[in-house]
Amino acid sequence: MLITVHAEEGFEMAQDGTLADVGEFGLIARLTDGLPSGEAVLVGPGDDAAVIRADSGSVVASVDVFVEHVHFRRDWSTAVDIGRKAAAASMADIAAMGARPTALVVGFVAPVELPASWAVQCTAGLVAEAERFGAALVGGDVAAGPHIMLSVTALGELIGADPVLRGGARSGDVIAVAGRLGWSAAGLAALSRGFRSPKALVDAHRCPQPPIEAALRAAVAGATAMIDVSDGLVADARHIAEASGAVLALDSALVPVDEAVASAAAAFSVDPRTWTMTGGEDHAFLATFPPEVEVPQGFVVIGTVRAVEADGAGVVVDGARVASGGGHDHFRVR
Amino acid sequence: MLITVHAEEGFEMAQDGTLADVGEFGLIARLTDGLPSGEAVLVGPGDDAAVIRADSGSVVASVDVFVEHVHFRRDWSTAVDIGRKAAAASMADIAAMGARPTALVVGFVAPVELPASWAVQCTAGLVAEAERFGAALVGGDVAAGPHIMLSVTALGELIGADPVLRGGARSGDVIAVAGRLGWSAAGLAALSRGFRSPKALVDAHRCPQPPIEAALRAAVAGATAMIDVSDGLVADARHIAEASGAVLALDSALVPVDEAVASAAAAFSVDPRTWTMTGGEDHAFLATFPPEVEVPQGFVVIGTVRAVEADGAGVVVDGARVASGGGHDHFRVR
Repeated sequence: MLITVHAEEGFEMAQDGTLADVGEFGLIARLTDGLPSGEAVLVGPGDDAAVIRADSGSVVASVDVFVEHVHFRRDWSTAVDIGRKAAAASMADIAAMGARPTALVVGFVAPVELPASWAVQCTAGLVAEAERFGAALVGGDVAAGPHIMLSVTALGELIGADPVLRGGARSGDVIAVAGRLGWSAAGLAALSRGFRSPKALVDAHRCPQPPIEAALRAAVAGATAMIDVSDGLVADARHIAEASGAVLALDSALVPVDEAVASAAAAFSVDPRTWTMTGGEDHAFLATFPPEVEVPQGFVVIGTVRAVEADGAGVVVDGARVASGGGHDHFRVR
Repeated sequence: MLITVHAEEGFEMAQDGTLADVGEFGLIARLTDGLPSGEAVLVGPGDDAAVIRADSGSVVASVDVFVEHVHFRRDWSTAVDIGRKAAAASMADIAAMGARPTALVVGFVAPVELPASWAVQCTAGLVAEAERFGAALVGGDVAAGPHIMLSVTALGELIGADPVLRGGARSGDVIAVAGRLGWSAAGLAALSRGFRSPKALVDAHRCPQPPIEAALRAAVAGATAMIDVSDGLVADARHIAEASGAVLALDSALVPVDEAVASAAAAFSVDPRTWTMTGGEDHAFLATFPPEVEVPQGFVVIGTVRAVEADGAGVVVDGARVASGGGHDHFRVR
């Protein structure tokens, strides 16, 4: 009988070998070595699947993909940053449902020439970001491919009886936002012009800081609709408007323009509202609340929900209808 | 104020436009249009995340990635086949824990030149395979990238109180397998030689048929360990052996060699056991059972678990220790 044998000699090679050097199982051993376990993890990495507690009787799930040269560049961001960004973006989707992140499962595709240490560092970033919110990396899959590609599936537990959907905004609700707006877009503009500063903005592009706890406060306070701002404030407001069959009327004078964003805009001769109104990837939370509700800590009121008008559901900024778009389209050829 | 506008003109373009033609949101609309909802789906596609029932108080989760030119070729498999294969492989991981698949979330990366119809067909394959087992496609993410890449996260519900892990095999247990062995490897051998037949084997490579119900019967019957055979029978037996701290002693004469595999092996002058013992991707289920348990319908006994020996945990075939390997390594340069 013939049995093919591939010796796993890479398993014990130096930390700076490539993926080809360490091999699939050597890489998996390194990525899962000493992974911390969250309290919700009943079975962690190493089996066919993970088992995560879901005491509420349901589980919230979302996936985000991150592709090299599309979502990130290795010369602009460290492996740790890229892992942290991927985890933060995925967990923001969970929080936008009014759910607390519990676990991540990660698909990792990379060229065989990639240093194994890059994968280890990226995983460290995923783990660190997950731990900030009490979540754990519980499983994954690795394969060879032409570019680095991460797929991060985040799971979570609802903190209320019902999820906060996009479709619950009602006429008369107030619109409020929590978190950074325009920071990532400003940081990207700086990087695109060859700068590595302002550091705060460039860091914001490398790794967002979604205010997950604010989103959970919104759910507790009775938010009628919520979304994380990944495509841009106007584009994501439209998602709520269309799902709710309503008009989201925003007052641009109320939309915060943080000092760092304003300074960079002045330096680059750009209207800062280009970034705050249409820049994505900061993963702020946009929510609507009944008028009698006090908006929770961290949220700023920026508009009002109106009944749908003759021209249908949509977004109005400073009284003028915004036709469409205002966000990022991954397949649009630019 | 400047707001960038990308008109979504692609939304209403012909079905055979490319991803660049239809755009990200046009594609999402097509992929999610009319998606069937499973009984476990509380919130389906279209929001920040999906919500799936988890009545048992836990959720089982696993991710598999599938990369064009690595896991599949578009000239060998249809888009429907590729979707079905990805779904089947992911759900097999869930079943190998003794859990019933409930939901899939899918990350989809593709070049902008890809016909949108390909993505629609691939999604149809994912949905069709999920439905076979009562599961539903509940969410996803799409992005542009150099190759087609699918990441399929499967979720499931345990059917017993405890998951069936890899580490539970005990000395004296019987080893049994359910499902096809060597079919996919034989089909791949045929395709690699430029043939499109034997059709049954080529179809088996294009889309595996994991016997999910048999795996669930194994869990109910009291299997002490279980794994789905994705890397190859010997390689996956080693995974159980190492996790259990035991020796899995296989009798190759007991390992089924199906007629289709035997015929192709004769035609290609190959030892069929190369395929049955080391071929992956059929997603058979390898399980161990206490000696007093009657192995459930669909399983064939192929060996016995022994206590660990001087040379450690591992696999013995026909009395001879198999050093290592015997499976597929995604980063090994061949």
